[in-house]
Amino acid sequence: MTQVIDRVRNGVDSTQLYDTLDAIKAEPALGVFQFRAHNQWVDGAHSQSSIQVFYGAGEENVSRAEAFTVDAGEPAVLLGADTGPNPAEYLLHALAASLTTTLVYAAAARKIKLTAVESILEGDMDVRGALGLSDEARNGFTKIRVTFIVEGDAPDDTLHELVEHAQARSAVFDMVANGVPVEVSVV
Amino acid sequence: MTQVIDRVRNGVDSTQLYDTLDAIKAEPALGVFQFRAHNQWVDGAHSQSSIQVFYGAGEENVSRAEAFTVDAGEPAVLLGADTGPNPAEYLLHALAASLTTTLVYAAAARKIKLTAVESILEGDMDVRGALGLSDEARNGFTKIRVTFIVEGDAPDDTLHELVEHAQARSAVFDMVANGVPVEVSVV
Repeated sequence: MTQVIDRVRNGVDSTQLYDTLDAIKAEPALGVFQFRAHNQWVDGAHSQSSIQVFYGAGEENVSRAEAFTVDAGEPAVLLGADTGPNPAEYLLHALAASLTTTLVYAAAARKIKLTAVESILEGDMDVRGALGLSDEARNGFTKIRVTFIVEGDAPDDTLHELVEHAQARSAVFDMVANGVPVEVSVV
Repeated sequence: MTQVIDRVRNGVDSTQLYDTLDAIKAEPALGVFQFRAHNQWVDGAHSQSSIQVFYGAGEENVSRAEAFTVDAGEPAVLLGADTGPNPAEYLLHALAASLTTTLVYAAAARKIKLTAVESILEGDMDVRGALGLSDEARNGFTKIRVTFIVEGDAPDDTLHELVEHAQARSAVFDMVANGVPVEVSVV
């Protein structure tokens, strides 16, 4: 019983975590992943993405019985009907979730039991860029601020180090902070 | 009746669109926006963001009666319980939705009636980076490919130009392609 509780820390099975790391270390090709989204425009600012199959660990992964569907929109002041968070808000969500998962996995590996992880994100944007009204204003956020609250059975210094680790290893933090080559084509 | 149909093109009210552009042109401070997300860790790879109030057009915008809540997760192969799309998939969704909305608004402004806008996104990642197994592999996607299908009452050239315009003005395309300064703090 104690052994099971010890194995699963912060909802992460540490045995499975180490097995996964060992497997990828032994065969680096298992680390090759491809994630996908299929977006369909509905009306106005409303579009919907379907997210299901991905490639990873050497195979097409079809383990998800159903696709996730997520709706995007814009509020009325940006000419939408509030059919979902807007794309920039989804980017903040992606960033928060990625930093948090990275932090939680690292805590599990270091045998730290977390009791709370919360983050508040703010992104500043001058919409004159995206609306084509200014060439000086960039289209996206000029700055993103992330404020973390982390609680657990470790000293404050250690909890702060987890947040630093999250920045050093989070996939979405890397992409948002450093950018990614994006190739767009039309068929 | 015809006038109403003409005003609303692709689900976008063109009169409202021009009024918005004119208002921000006249008073650039109305273009200052701040979007926000509040993320809470649930368990393991499961976290949830709450998205509601934002600042824009000169005021705290409290028009959304309820918060949107969006769940993130990881599939089993990445040690999660599939409680939602993963953070990198959400980034693809954010990118698709932003490009699509920018394209649809531009079509409305140019009096082009769209009948379909679809996009397929793929992001390539070597997860050895994010898992801390390799310093050569970056944490995020090495590349994102976006493939658009656009149909409407305009020649192919014009529809292709809409996709180019979307890249030139999309907020999330700018952020993902060029990066954004991110400041992380802990309280």
